[in-house]
Amino acid sequence: MNYAKMSEQELQKEYSAVKASYATAKEQKLCLDMSRGKPGEEQLEISLHMLDIVNSASSCKTQSGADCRNYGLLQGLPSCRELFAKMLQVEPSMVMVGGNSSLNLMFDAVSTLMTKPVKQGLKPWGEVANRKFLCPVPGYDRHFSITEYFGFEMICIPMTETGPDMDLIEKLIAEDEDIKGIWCVPKYSNPQGITYSDETVRRFAALKPAAEDFRIFWDDAYCVHDVNDDGDKLLSLYDECKKTGSEDIAIYFASTSKVTFPGSGVAAMAASPLNMEFFVKRFTNQTIGYDKINMLRHMLFFAATAEESDECKNAADKIYCGLIRHMGKHKEILKPRFNVVINALQEQLADTGTIEWRNPNGGYFVSVNVTPGTAKRVVALCKEAGLVLTGAGATFPLGADPADSNIRIAPTYPSVEELKSAMEVFCVCVKLAALEKLCS
Amino acid sequence: MNYAKMSEQELQKEYSAVKASYATAKEQKLCLDMSRGKPGEEQLEISLHMLDIVNSASSCKTQSGADCRNYGLLQGLPSCRELFAKMLQVEPSMVMVGGNSSLNLMFDAVSTLMTKPVKQGLKPWGEVANRKFLCPVPGYDRHFSITEYFGFEMICIPMTETGPDMDLIEKLIAEDEDIKGIWCVPKYSNPQGITYSDETVRRFAALKPAAEDFRIFWDDAYCVHDVNDDGDKLLSLYDECKKTGSEDIAIYFASTSKVTFPGSGVAAMAASPLNMEFFVKRFTNQTIGYDKINMLRHMLFFAATAEESDECKNAADKIYCGLIRHMGKHKEILKPRFNVVINALQEQLADTGTIEWRNPNGGYFVSVNVTPGTAKRVVALCKEAGLVLTGAGATFPLGADPADSNIRIAPTYPSVEELKSAMEVFCVCVKLAALEKLCS
Repeated sequence: MNYAKMSEQELQKEYSAVKASYATAKEQKLCLDMSRGKPGEEQLEISLHMLDIVNSASSCKTQSGADCRNYGLLQGLPSCRELFAKMLQVEPSMVMVGGNSSLNLMFDAVSTLMTKPVKQGLKPWGEVANRKFLCPVPGYDRHFSITEYFGFEMICIPMTETGPDMDLIEKLIAEDEDIKGIWCVPKYSNPQGITYSDETVRRFAALKPAAEDFRIFWDDAYCVHDVNDDGDKLLSLYDECKKTGSEDIAIYFASTSKVTFPGSGVAAMAASPLNMEFFVKRFTNQTIGYDKINMLRHMLFFAATAEESDECKNAADKIYCGLIRHMGKHKEILKPRFNVVINALQEQLADTGTIEWRNPNGGYFVSVNVTPGTAKRVVALCKEAGLVLTGAGATFPLGADPADSNIRIAPTYPSVEELKSAMEVFCVCVKLAALEKLCS
Repeated sequence: MNYAKMSEQELQKEYSAVKASYATAKEQKLCLDMSRGKPGEEQLEISLHMLDIVNSASSCKTQSGADCRNYGLLQGLPSCRELFAKMLQVEPSMVMVGGNSSLNLMFDAVSTLMTKPVKQGLKPWGEVANRKFLCPVPGYDRHFSITEYFGFEMICIPMTETGPDMDLIEKLIAEDEDIKGIWCVPKYSNPQGITYSDETVRRFAALKPAAEDFRIFWDDAYCVHDVNDDGDKLLSLYDECKKTGSEDIAIYFASTSKVTFPGSGVAAMAASPLNMEFFVKRFTNQTIGYDKINMLRHMLFFAATAEESDECKNAADKIYCGLIRHMGKHKEILKPRFNVVINALQEQLADTGTIEWRNPNGGYFVSVNVTPGTAKRVVALCKEAGLVLTGAGATFPLGADPADSNIRIAPTYPSVEELKSAMEVFCVCVKLAALEKLCS
């Protein structure tokens, strides 16, 4: 029953019952860390063959005869550039394959713009005293940390069911040339799992920022990460930008961190010729090249995962088919876990009115809003009962959720059984925190 | 016979003979790239077992049970930090293991200091209008490119047989607080193969710079790279710094790029607690962690390379013994190549007076000084005959060798037979360029 509709007496009775449940939950002595979006053991297992697929001198050679063990090919293996182009819906020539972390590529991109202007005549961002960045909220804490580190004022943009509030974005960037960029996770957004609508993507392509060096940081982290069979479709921002002639406005990022191994995947960025020329000037001075053997491992592994029945016109198609097939295996592992979370919320919390959430079709998280003013308390109660969640507020710049309401649930790492115990605890804590507030 | 002592007639005769030799050399249609310090095929082969040594879920676990495939351990595997501590002669707690490139770590270190001060109250280097960097010459072109990219004025410091000219360094940095750092390759310097003397290291540790944020970039790229059996010994800069209380003055770098695979090695940096706290603030925002599976590959491979007869008190010793044993295999491959170069210079050029060089005990290069004003011409003549060398001047900031004399020879990549042909061509070109000058 909805707490808001309970009498004082009913509330007190529920409070006592929930306190008792919490005491019982604590006795379970749970010890579980759900603070980060870490793939679980079963997910790591399905990529194991990648480890020994490059195992001889001959397997280190690319089709064109380059030896992946040696120096060379600054922008990465051609096959790897093609794969990321498909994932990011851009051209292979626009892709630069980096190390193991797309976050690192994003950090470096901001870092580059801090000291160098992307076009002659402009100021480096570091020389813009009141530099600002738009942050759709709730969002990814590590995005916000980068712009915090580099001294940007961060402006929160509310998320809607179709993506960030475009009216607000259009208005703000048209007026203020100190606004230099926006963080976007356009597909299965972190944490809500929202995929930007076609209209939202088109409006991004049509943005008219006052700052010539305004850039959309298009972090397509979950581009192939469906959890449900009928996954979302994201329009190609690059295709839309071509139509409006605004190819320079976006920089694209992706990685295989949540495809193969989180610590040992491959990351890439993509950008228009003008942007890429600017970044390659840095890459040329920064490194002789990234780890090509690891790129090759990924390519051979995906190619080996494709099946006869896949319709592949060429080697690049085969690699992409293998990737999609591989993501199907992840889906089978993740779907039951997302179901545990959604079912627990539905069965244990829906009718109390203490929570709001949405059921995502993919990505890595379930985002919930608990009773305003209780998110920090819920996380603290969970911790006391042995369940570590992402810190409340982490989904907002500077860790400050004005409503103290949003919590990110990361269901991937625990086993299904552990997750069931964890959700029992979580639901009790959400109720308890709400009742503490209502009954105080 | 020495060209300087030849009569006009003798010179003309020699000129004709050398021109004929060059014409013959061109007919060989050589096609060889010796422009970079790339390991050769035989060197790549000896690390091949590293590729499949991590091949199961259990082999991905560290001693403490961490799964190398997943996120975690920002500063790297403990065993890997210990290995780099031994290589760099510092403490394991000072080490941060990075991606595949120490150059990238150096670039990022300068980049960090450009936007943030290492200590409160100081200016970020980017705000120092006349920022300067000391560059021992001849030196490593990619070092100079980094400081060029970030807008430093580069001041050349002549190299001597014992390291850079310390009198000059001490004088300059005591006077000018805009001088923020110096590039050093202290063992088997690139390109000359000079190892800094004990006195030089002690003088580095005793430096009294005007700038509180002056830093020595101690790139120990060739710390275990002997070519002769009786290798050079480098004093530990960190130990000397402890004696003078100047632990904060240096940042240390190394990698396995020329130990295992150039594109897929492991790199590390080390620094005092004050410096490392500063850099870790950046790393924390820049990445969730570097590739730990690749670190593990290296550790297991070196441990497997150690032999029963090695005296190893513990696992870390065993890994280090394996590394040294592995470097012994490189030495066997490289020694004949260095001998080809040295013998060719000795036999074909020594008595002409057109060249000076030193015989290094290790490293990756032989540095030669040809007749002043002819280095560019020598490189051009070689190229015309199918032999690509490092560009003349590359060993100086902005590619500008004032004497147009220094050339870096990289003997590692070709086979011994190819190298013999290459050195034939090279020696002819050195003579031809000198004669063109003398006879014009």
